[in-house]
Amino acid sequence: MSITVVGSVAFDTVETPAGRRERCLAGAATYFSLAASFFTPVRVIAVVGEDFGPKEEAVFSARGVDIRGIERAPGKSFFWQGSYLDNLNEARTLKTDLNVFAGFEPKIPDAYRDSQFLFLANIDPVLQRRVREATPQAKLVAGDTMNYWIKDHKAALLEVLKGLDILLINDTETRMLAGNNNLVLAARAVMEMGPRMLVVKHGEYGATLFYGKNSGSHRTECFKTPAFPLEQVTDPTGAGDSFAGGFFGYLASQAELTLGAFRRAMFYGSVMGSFTVERFGTERLQALSREEIDNRFNLFRELTHLD
Amino acid sequence: MSITVVGSVAFDTVETPAGRRERCLAGAATYFSLAASFFTPVRVIAVVGEDFGPKEEAVFSARGVDIRGIERAPGKSFFWQGSYLDNLNEARTLKTDLNVFAGFEPKIPDAYRDSQFLFLANIDPVLQRRVREATPQAKLVAGDTMNYWIKDHKAALLEVLKGLDILLINDTETRMLAGNNNLVLAARAVMEMGPRMLVVKHGEYGATLFYGKNSGSHRTECFKTPAFPLEQVTDPTGAGDSFAGGFFGYLASQAELTLGAFRRAMFYGSVMGSFTVERFGTERLQALSREEIDNRFNLFRELTHLD
Repeated sequence: MSITVVGSVAFDTVETPAGRRERCLAGAATYFSLAASFFTPVRVIAVVGEDFGPKEEAVFSARGVDIRGIERAPGKSFFWQGSYLDNLNEARTLKTDLNVFAGFEPKIPDAYRDSQFLFLANIDPVLQRRVREATPQAKLVAGDTMNYWIKDHKAALLEVLKGLDILLINDTETRMLAGNNNLVLAARAVMEMGPRMLVVKHGEYGATLFYGKNSGSHRTECFKTPAFPLEQVTDPTGAGDSFAGGFFGYLASQAELTLGAFRRAMFYGSVMGSFTVERFGTERLQALSREEIDNRFNLFRELTHLD
Repeated sequence: MSITVVGSVAFDTVETPAGRRERCLAGAATYFSLAASFFTPVRVIAVVGEDFGPKEEAVFSARGVDIRGIERAPGKSFFWQGSYLDNLNEARTLKTDLNVFAGFEPKIPDAYRDSQFLFLANIDPVLQRRVREATPQAKLVAGDTMNYWIKDHKAALLEVLKGLDILLINDTETRMLAGNNNLVLAARAVMEMGPRMLVVKHGEYGATLFYGKNSGSHRTECFKTPAFPLEQVTDPTGAGDSFAGGFFGYLASQAELTLGAFRRAMFYGSVMGSFTVERFGTERLQALSREEIDNRFNLFRELTHLD
């Protein structure tokens, strides 16, 4: 089943202890769609500027990603500059130029209308909601958000949450959104806001899937995965979006969405995040094969299972 | 097989968001021995003051822990006061009174001499080494330490590490000891210092066992476990020591120390840590049954395994 994703396609300049890259192709929708493309067809809705040329197009087309929904606008693409020199786990933002993204009005190509899986990457919740409403055929809808929208645009965000099946956010965002420091209780509170599942990403420590609510036996209603151990983290940018792409891409490839499928999706999410951070930008995703993914999946199972 | 543990038996006053307790029975050797006692016979070497009476003795004897090696000295027992009001993941120390612990000279009762498992809890590395040398019969030796010894007593600590089979420390301590921010590389560097295995405890995020070194296929040479999800963390004190007790106690109960046994030991360690933090001090360990432990072990497997 195909996935439609709406989000940012951008250029990033990043500095990490491993080095520096100028204007690499980036953005949540880019990482998401490249990661998901190893599992299922992906269609992107975004806006880019005149700096997005054949070289960038080729990155998507090499992975078979449909970019008919990427609108070209006069001006420059969304640009972000950040540094991980102080802390490899959290970027320090040095510059954000919205550029053409400031006027983004998502348009859904007719050819995308049969996508049954919809991913709303981290953008203004007003836009997320508009895309959600324009795709009534979507059977499974997942989304991301960030501290900025939780703090300053909560009302709009709460409207989006009502239309989500799965929300993917990190620990801090979960606690902030729920106003509760205990992660299990915070997760339950977030699920009361709409999504029937919540994936909490713990960065270098893995992720937890919370599912089901209002049940007495809440204790079994989660699934935890550590992170794949890495000897070299080159650039953490895009880890969360790649996790989401692996997670949702795997789900979209399954005939039946059993609990087992969700558990394996968590593992595939971790695996895709682990590949992305091994190199700068999307370099590792561009050079990846499905065989490498499945090998790491199997190794990851070995590193985490009792027998 | 029995375990001999040397470490602190103390009284703690703690404040957490859940409340406050005055002078509860605590100390690394206390948490360790109570947790390990569910798996194997345990013998304690420590020193206490005149404030350690029949009530405290009863806590150990109820769990069958041998306290003939707990020396009584004139004065007061080791006392620690801490607060978790700001941060449930890290204690703020308000007071440390070494009291009788300042003059601690571990004495090993003859009755302990056949213990083949030795645990050196977090005390002065000079004392750890002395106990290690006085117990040549020990076949498996594990130990803990902390930032203070790593920073200011590194030479003495390095001597201890040479005599250890397994070191159990946290993320920060591992990075500090190795002088490397990448956990996988830091773990390998620590294993070069002596211990052939390293357990890195990630607090609320679980733990990683690193084993084997100098091998080409390093990637498979670790085992990761998340932490058991808890709705209520009452008092984090003793979580790490209880983890160590569950981990080492389970190993001591096994006829053969296979890799499978080490993996299960990691799960039992997490389970024991998760029980301890549910209530203040050792309250939960005192009220615990082996059946509850095995039920949580099985539930934990369910929450972390693909099938």
